[in-house]
Formats: sequence, C-alpha cells, structure tokens
Amino acid sequence: MLSDPLARELYNEFTRIAIIDVHTHLDPHHPTARSLDDLLSYYHYPELALSTGMDRSMLAPGVDPGDRVRALFYHLLDFFPNTAPLQWLLEIAHAFLDFGGERLSFADCTQLADIADRLMTKRDWEQRVLHTCNIEKAFLNNDFDDPLEGIDAARYVPCLRADDLVFHFAEDQVRQRLARVGGGEVGDGPGLHRALAALFEHFARHQARAVNLVVPPDFAPEPVAGPDLSRALAALAVPQRQHAADGADAARLAAHGIFHAVVHHCQAFQLPLQLMIGVSHRAQHEGRFPSPAAAGGAAPMDRYAELFRSFPGATFCVSVISSGPAEELVNFSRIFANVVTNGFGGSTNSVPAALQKAVRCRLQAVPQTKQLGYYSAADKLEFILPQLNMYRRVLADALALDFVRPRIYTVWQAVQLGRLLLRDNARRIFDV
Amino acid sequence: MLSDPLARELYNEFTRIAIIDVHTHLDPHHPTARSLDDLLSYYHYPELALSTGMDRSMLAPGVDPGDRVRALFYHLLDFFPNTAPLQWLLEIAHAFLDFGGERLSFADCTQLADIADRLMTKRDWEQRVLHTCNIEKAFLNNDFDDPLEGIDAARYVPCLRADDLVFHFAEDQVRQRLARVGGGEVGDGPGLHRALAALFEHFARHQARAVNLVVPPDFAPEPVAGPDLSRALAALAVPQRQHAADGADAARLAAHGIFHAVVHHCQAFQLPLQLMIGVSHRAQHEGRFPSPAAAGGAAPMDRYAELFRSFPGATFCVSVISSGPAEELVNFSRIFANVVTNGFGGSTNSVPAALQKAVRCRLQAVPQTKQLGYYSAADKLEFILPQLNMYRRVLADALALDFVRPRIYTVWQAVQLGRLLLRDNARRIFDV
Amino acid sequence: MLSDPLARELYNEFTRIAIIDVHTHLDPHHPTARSLDDLLSYYHYPELALSTGMDRSMLAPGVDPGDRVRALFYHLLDFFPNTAPLQWLLEIAHAFLDFGGERLSFADCTQLADIADRLMTKRDWEQRVLHTCNIEKAFLNNDFDDPLEGIDAARYVPCLRADDLVFHFAEDQVRQRLARVGGGEVGDGPGLHRALAALFEHFARHQARAVNLVVPPDFAPEPVAGPDLSRALAALAVPQRQHAADGADAARLAAHGIFHAVVHHCQAFQLPLQLMIGVSHRAQHEGRFPSPAAAGGAAPMDRYAELFRSFPGATFCVSVISSGPAEELVNFSRIFANVVTNGFGGSTNSVPAALQKAVRCRLQAVPQTKQLGYYSAADKLEFILPQLNMYRRVLADALALDFVRPRIYTVWQAVQLGRLLLRDNARRIFDV
Repeated sequence: MLSDPLARELYNEFTRIAIIDVHTHLDPHHPTARSLDDLLSYYHYPELALSTGMDRSMLAPGVDPGDRVRALFYHLLDFFPNTAPLQWLLEIAHAFLDFGGERLSFADCTQLADIADRLMTKRDWEQRVLHTCNIEKAFLNNDFDDPLEGIDAARYVPCLRADDLVFHFAEDQVRQRLARVGGGEVGDGPGLHRALAALFEHFARHQARAVNLVVPPDFAPEPVAGPDLSRALAALAVPQRQHAADGADAARLAAHGIFHAVVHHCQAFQLPLQLMIGVSHRAQHEGRFPSPAAAGGAAPMDRYAELFRSFPGATFCVSVISSGPAEELVNFSRIFANVVTNGFGGSTNSVPAALQKAVRCRLQAVPQTKQLGYYSAADKLEFILPQLNMYRRVLADALALDFVRPRIYTVWQAVQLGRLLLRDNARRIFDV
Repeated sequence: MLSDPLARELYNEFTRIAIIDVHTHLDPHHPTARSLDDLLSYYHYPELALSTGMDRSMLAPGVDPGDRVRALFYHLLDFFPNTAPLQWLLEIAHAFLDFGGERLSFADCTQLADIADRLMTKRDWEQRVLHTCNIEKAFLNNDFDDPLEGIDAARYVPCLRADDLVFHFAEDQVRQRLARVGGGEVGDGPGLHRALAALFEHFARHQARAVNLVVPPDFAPEPVAGPDLSRALAALAVPQRQHAADGADAARLAAHGIFHAVVHHCQAFQLPLQLMIGVSHRAQHEGRFPSPAAAGGAAPMDRYAELFRSFPGATFCVSVISSGPAEELVNFSRIFANVVTNGFGGSTNSVPAALQKAVRCRLQAVPQTKQLGYYSAADKLEFILPQLNMYRRVLADALALDFVRPRIYTVWQAVQLGRLLLRDNARRIFDV
Repeated sequence: MLSDPLARELYNEFTRIAIIDVHTHLDPHHPTARSLDDLLSYYHYPELALSTGMDRSMLAPGVDPGDRVRALFYHLLDFFPNTAPLQWLLEIAHAFLDFGGERLSFADCTQLADIADRLMTKRDWEQRVLHTCNIEKAFLNNDFDDPLEGIDAARYVPCLRADDLVFHFAEDQVRQRLARVGGGEVGDGPGLHRALAALFEHFARHQARAVNLVVPPDFAPEPVAGPDLSRALAALAVPQRQHAADGADAARLAAHGIFHAVVHHCQAFQLPLQLMIGVSHRAQHEGRFPSPAAAGGAAPMDRYAELFRSFPGATFCVSVISSGPAEELVNFSRIFANVVTNGFGGSTNSVPAALQKAVRCRLQAVPQTKQLGYYSAADKLEFILPQLNMYRRVLADALALDFVRPRIYTVWQAVQLGRLLLRDNARRIFDV
C-alpha cells in the first residue's frame, strides 16, 4: 500500500522485527477470537455501528451471532467503510481467513463467518496468529484481584490495572474485592499500604511488568497527608455516610492518596507505571466518565512535574488519550529522566492521518530511547497484525521522508531506530 | 491548481455534483452582491484590512464606495495577498467578472468595480451565480423574529438562529422581541415553552430545516429544574434588578434552561441543531465575546455527553470554531448516533493547509454517513464558488492520497464518498 | 537536504537575505561559544542528556570540560541522535569546525574539541560567525537592571526582560534591584510608574527596541485599580507579612498591576512587547513553574482582547510556547491591528515536522506584514546558523508546495514574501 519504494523497503524490514505490544486487553486464557462474531466484538465495530444507527439490542447476549455479524457487516460496509476498522478486517481476512478478494462485500459475510468458525477453533490457531503477527510479547491489563493463574507470562505479561483502586474506591464492591485479596479491610493509610504491598507482591510473583492507570484529563495529582488519607479511608469504610458532600470529599482525598500510594509501590517494586491521560473511548462508550470528584484545577502540568520529581526511581510511561493541555505532558519526557512516551491513545491510535502527524513530530522531538512506538489496545490477538502493520507503514513513511531522503540517516540507521520503537525500548524499560 | 492528475480527476467529478451549503449568512431576498464594494464587505476583507492598519472610518456608511474599494484593494494586495481571501476574489473575478489576468493588481480595481456594477445588477445575475457555483440549496441563519415572508425555501432554506434567545435573554430588547412573536411576555418556564412552541411552529410552517446556535467553548450545558428556571425568568422580567450578582445568576440559569428548552423543541419538531462551539470570528470582530455568566467549568465533555444521551431523538450537527478541548466533541460523532460532524469552523474554514489536515483526519475517523463536508458561512452567494472549490480541491487531494493511491478505494468509490460529503448526507440529515 | 529543486532554489535565495533574529539569549559581550563545552551548554543538550540518564553532577562547575563534552556527546549520539540538536551540531561542525565527515561519531569528539579551542579563541571568530550566518541584528534579553554598557547596539539590540518585575515582585531581591536602578523603593502605584519610567528611559537611551515577557498559559490579564495596586505594593514592601494568604493576594494583584503598567510604558515609549505565552522550557528545566498566584481563570481570550483594545498604540508580538487555548491568541493578529505573530515557541521551535505544519498554516492565515518569521532563542551565536537554516528549508518547502506549484505566486513573489518574514517585517515593526 506504500507508494514510496524506500518506505516499502523500510516496512519490509520492520515486519521482520518481533514486536512487543505493551498495552492490550487480551484474555490470556484465550487471546484469539473464537468466531467472526467474537472478532467483531472489538469495541470499534459496535461503537461505530451504534453511532450509525444499529439497534443496541443487537449486542444483547441472546441474539443469534449470525444476525449480529450481518448487522455489523451491513453498517461497516454501508456507513463506515472509510474508517480504519474496515481495512483492519480486510487485512485479517487476507492473512487469516483465506480471503482472496480485493474488497469486502456483504456477500462475503457468511463465507467469512464459516471459515472463521472452522479455522479459529483449530488447536494451532493461536500459534498461527502469533507467528503471522510476529509478536514476541503482549502486555495484559489485569484486574487488581485477578488470581493470575495459568498465564504463560513469557508471552502474555501481566500488568496491574489500578483504575478501580484509585478512582472507584468509594464503591463498596471495590473495597470488598480489595479486602479479599489484600488481607482484610482497609480503614486507614497504613492499612492501605499493607494491602497494596500484598497486591504488588502477588503481581510481582506472577511476573507482572507494569501498572496501568487511566486518569481523567483534568486530574491534578495532589499529595495527601497521612492523617487526611486515613480519615478519608475511614469515612469511606463506614457503611452509611451522613452527607453526600463529605462522601465526595472523602472519595476525592482517597483518589489522590491512593494514586500516590500506587506510585510509591511502583517505585518500590520497580514496576513502570503506564499512565494514560484522558477519557477512554471504552469508558465513554459505556457512559462511564471520570468522577468529577477526582477532577482538580485546569492546569495540572506543574502538579505532574512535582509528581515526577518526587518519585525519581519510578518510571512513567505516558500516553495521552484525549487532546488538550495533556498533550504537553509528552514534552515532559524531554525534561524528566523517568518519563517516557508510550504509543498513541484516542483517535490517533486508529486514524492513519492523525497517527502520521503524531509519529513525525515525536520522532524528531523525543530521544530515541524514550519512545515506546505503538501499542494496540486490542482485545483479540488477530487485530495486532493490521494495527501494527498500520503503524509500521506510518513509521516507514516518516523515516523515509524526514530521515533518509534528507540524508540525515542511512537506511540501516532508520531500521535500527525502528527496532528501538518496535521492540528494544520495551525490552529495556519493562525488563522483559 | 492541483498538480496530481488523479486529484484533478476527482476534483472535476466533484464540480459536477450539485452542492448543499448547510450554513450561510445569505440574505434570501438578495443573496448576491450588488457591487464590488458589497462583495468586499464579506467580513474577511474588512477584518484583515483593519488588522493591517486600515482606518475603521472607511467602513462608515457615508464613505464613497469607490474609496472604500480602493482602500480594501490596497490592503489586500499589499498586506494580505498571501491569504485565501485574495484567491477567492481572483476566482470570483475569473468566473463572474470577465477578468482574464493571472493575478490581480491595484490597476484592476476600477475596471472590476465597473464591470461588477454593470453585471451584478442584471436580472439573471443570481441565476448565473447559482448555475456556475452548482448550488442546489443554501441554508440561512434567520433571527428568531424573522417573518420569513417571500423566501424561496426550496432554494434558501430557513434556519432558526437561537443565539439571542439562549445567551442574550437578559437583554430587554430580546425579551420584547420574543414577546411580540411568541404571544406575550415570558415570565416562567411554561411561558417559555409556549413561546418557543409558537416560534418553532412559525419556522416549521416556513420550511425551516435546522436550528443554529453558537456556544462559547467553555459552556457546559446543565439541566435546570423547572422552578429554578421559572424563578430566573421572573427575575429577568422585572424591570429594575436590585443586585448585579442576582441578575448574573438569573442570566446564567436562563441560558442553561433556555438551551435545554431549545433542544427539547428541536427534538419535538425534528429539526437538527447546528451546534457551533467556540467564539465566532464575527463576534470577536465586533467585540462581542460570550458572556462570562454563561461559562461553566473547564471540562464540559461529560456534560455534553449527558445532553446527547438525554435527547436521543434530536440530531446534533457539531462544528468546532475554536481549537481546544472542544475538538474532542467531534469524537462524539463516533459514540452517539445522534451526533454528526458539520464542516469546519474558525480558521480551518478558510486556511487550506489547516483544512487539509482536518479533512484527512476526519475522512478516516468518522463514518461516511455522519459527515457534513463543508459549509461556507458566506454572506454573498458569489463566495460559495471559491470556498467550495477550495474544499473540493482539498477533498480530492486527500482522497487521492489516502484512499485511491494506497488502493483502499477505487476512483468510483472515492467519488461516491465525495458525493455523500458534498450533498447526500445533507439531504438525508436535514430531510431536504 | 531538500529534495524538491524548486524548494532548493527558494532556499538558496533565502540564504542571501541578511536576517534579523528578534529573540535570543546571547551575551552581547561575548556572543559566541568559547569551546565545544560552551557550545554544548545550550539548554537543549543538557536537557536531553539529563532526560536520558546523564548524571546532573556532570553539569557542576568543577567538572573537567573534556569529561562533560564526552558525556554529552555520548548521550547525544546514543540516545537522541534523532532530534534536531544533533543536526544543528553537525551543521555547525561543517560550517565552523572544519569537519568533513557525513555523520558525527564518538571518535570525532576530541578532535572537534581541539579545533573549537583553537578557532573559537581567534580574534575574528565572531565576525566569521556573523558573516557565515548572514545575520544583520540579533535581539537580546536583558535583565531590567542591566547597565547596558559597552554593547554594540547596532548589532545586538537590547530588550528589556520584564519577567522578574511582573511575576517575581514579591521577592525581596527583585524589589531591591528595582530600588537600586529605579531611584528608590517602590511602595505604591505612582512610585511604580516613576521607577518604570526611569527603567524605560535607561533602556531607550541604550537603543533598546523591545520589551520581553513570558506569561503563564493560564494568566488572564486583569486591570487593577490604582488604590488596590498601591495597597498591594505597600503590603509587599513591609518586611514581615502576617498572613501567607494576604501575601499571595498582594503578589497576584501586583503581578496584574505591574503587567498593565509595563504595557502602558511600552505604548508610551513605542517599544513593542514580545509576549511569549506558555511555560518556558528553560523554566521547566530549572523546576521554576509560574506561580499559581498569577494564574487566573481558564478562558483568558477575552481578557487579552480587552488588553489589546485598551492599548491601541502599543504593539504586541505574540508567540505561543505551549499548546492549548493560547494557540487562539495567534488568531488575534487577524483581528487587532496592534497584534503580530512572532516566530514559534515550545517544541515547534526545534522540531522540523511541527514547524512545517505551523509555518504552512500561518503563511495562509496571517497577513504577510504581520508575521515575524522565526526567532532562535539561541544563547550562542553559532546556533543561529543551523536554526535559521532549518527555518529557511521549512519556509522554502512550504512556499514551493502551497504557493508556487499551485500557481498562486511566482518564484519572485515567494522570495519577496520570504524576505518580509526573515528581515523586513522585523525592521519595520521594531524600527531598526
């Protein structure tokens, strides 16, 4: 698909590099899709189909999978064929589903579903996908109370997802889940630290290599004094709260205090924190917006600077999901030794023209050793192929245009730079 | 002007498609310019001339039109020949004013003015312009108390401009105008709904197809309880207000309450709301900034999400005038079935390099059926030609580069996509 | 390095134009580097080396310069060879240090240091650099209490740096410095105006041509009534302040009041104000963030509009250092006759891909007479060569792509436009 022969040459080199995908939503017990219906459950497809008028009832569990596939296919081809998800599906069909046509049509739907049913249930399917994608490792996003049993951690690297702990600690069931795995109820600061220590030990024992956290764009981390944190945690532990305002204040203090406690343990356990700043598309889609209680002032830049300075031994892999002031955070990787840039979030992750612009700027702005090139955020292994290929094309094009053609780099140097972004930086930063 | 032959081919196809311009400031009783002076009254020209030192007194009504034209021409050629408005004028001169030169010079000024005087007063001028522009329909922006008489609604589609109602209801003359057309004074919530219903019926009877509203970038729509709205409206109806602070609070509550009431009626009357978020250039130019009373918090994203969810039967055509957090709103068209993207506001509307970047990203990000390609915001029919041609070139270039050359689309598919953006989506969404 | 022959032709023309760099941090008494160590002290190199793990102790005064150079070289080549600073160093080595290789390697370090020691101490070094860069004038950034003695003001143009006065007036030493040069202690508004008048007279006598000020992105200038300003200045003048809160409020009022007083004197003395909006990289690097006391609301746009309107006789050269809402300020150059755009701050200044996008948009958006093309912000004369060349390439490429190829401009017109941006606008606006 690349018209520049130099970019094609670079792209071909990049397909030979075994990649490490540092952020996915894969199920390590069954990372691949089981059917075409399962494949099309990747949130882009229902999101775009709903946004173009598909009835939400099509997503209910009782619906016949064949009917749902036809509905999604219909919306995909008629309403959003111009978006990357159609290209991704076409590339998957070519690579994995014996599809030979140049374009998908509604008539291909049934046949693709049948072939998917036949092939995806084969024993070697996962191996075939891994081999074709040329993936060495994919990082997971595990709930904090995940038992982490039976995971092939050499391939699927556990990561502690801290969102519930930090931003939903006011919910009873979150505190109960923590009580179960953290050795009892948390009613004050020391109790919180003990529980987190237990969690982190559990994750470290199971070869976890990172902690993941999505924070709202207007979150401005504030240190919380020990007694204040204890008071807030105690208030949340009391079953009936008298005043909603007090509860909101306690939730806010708890969010900030737990955030800092999590970062403290990241540093202590040498687990990089994958900090994703913005409103996640998944969350928006589900109508879950960040709690206003957690939101602070309008200029969080200096607060993050304080945070980065306070934890010099922690590593922060920063990714920006939504645009706005948070974009500036990426610049902090030029200022703080413990801050690295981490792929691209939001629509930049899936819109080639936006990705191209972001990749070109970052290639020239951030030290080569401080960039994690791209993560997929995929929940089925199959999508890593087209998403990574999209990134490889954009990367090859950018390197050809801005580095090799102006004689700043040789082709060999450009390939080495690509290798850092696709694989070697992840190996070093996450020690895998 | 396009150097890529494939883009030229697409451009030529696009000029054959009869376009629908969904947002203009045309006067339906005399949509074309009457003279070169009238043509150059389009706000870009005085704005840029004033910004480069032209005396504001040149814009006064008593000034000789020939003097004003020479002053504007002088500033245009000497100070801002690098901006799109010069290209627009050149394209108009070529298409409509028998100009054959390759570039405009000050010496052409008098001759162009003479030719304009001669041609623009001909009876068939409007038809000639419509034919050359290949416009099928242009949407208007009517004051809420416009009688709407004598408008050829098949060509010039009335739209209710709600800005005064929502953001200037605290001004006596706005309330008086509403009292005149809405059947009496509005002193409480039910009275407001009755008056709006009368307005909407009046507009619907005259074939209005949309409601238009410009909201400040920091406006965060908040539902207002019925009694609170009534109290605020009653406070505003009292001639002398005791406390400025109370008045400001009433104005704020009224803005939010009227906003929601307008959206309610959009849904009830099946009129899409053209929501333009940002500070309008026209308003800035006139020194009218959004009233701070209307401004809310810094993160309005979730508030809009609530709004879009609350009115599933209303259609929101969102356009972002100024950059910043509001850009995210465009992403909501991927999440909400009732949100579509609507052209480009602010400088993106008139700066080809900015337009190009925005068009490329949107083409790959938003379902093809949810994009209204471009609106001109022109106040003279003649400008629709060069502005639409600018968009057609950008669109042709983007489709050639990102769709046809990488073999994602055939030329035929690219033309169909262009047709949706230039015409068919507007027909379907506004039911025209 | 440009592959388009038309862009190369334009670039060659641009190198023949004697440039005026309107914002530097040069030392007028010794504007060039004294050694390779001195050259690499330009903040980009230590910043990027520290961000990639260099020990901060390498920057201490006692460290052997040869060791420091090797440490910086090592980090530069191994960790950030992809960033523009490596290209800048290579271009300096080619132009000034007799380096003939195509790329720099660690082995070149010692030889370059030796050649630098030998050449940079020659008497004609400064002349040689000036000649090769083709610089006519470079603007300085002088502390408000700089005696300004012995400066060749025809070459190195003094500018009053007002940051300390406006944003650090609460610090005892700032007030004491002002007392020394302003004719006594400042305890009220009239005293402030007298002191500023003395300062401005001193600067004007020494051929100063601008006032420079970096303001935080969330600063919203507010006029302060005379008595309030006097009360705030009196409170700051009292040695022990009773309440921290009162002190913060006095500091805030003083910042806003002094800001307006400075603008007032800019207008009275006909000195343009170079207003840089954002958090400076230098400040971030040193851990100095704008004092929250100075920060105002979240929508400063209308406040700036009021400011620009209040001082029609002052000239504002606006530059945006960090992205976000402040980007909109650039649009104000289309609205206010006294606002011009001034180069590019933040990473746009040093990242070619970002610079290219910004240049293309601004070329088509802002009148040609209201753009100051590029400033280097360099602190050693040598860097003006590669930084200006980077800008010339970007400018040449943009003009070829968007003006000459689409036949909007002839090559001759494009060269004239470049001349305005590189030289003539600065001459006119700053009257040099």
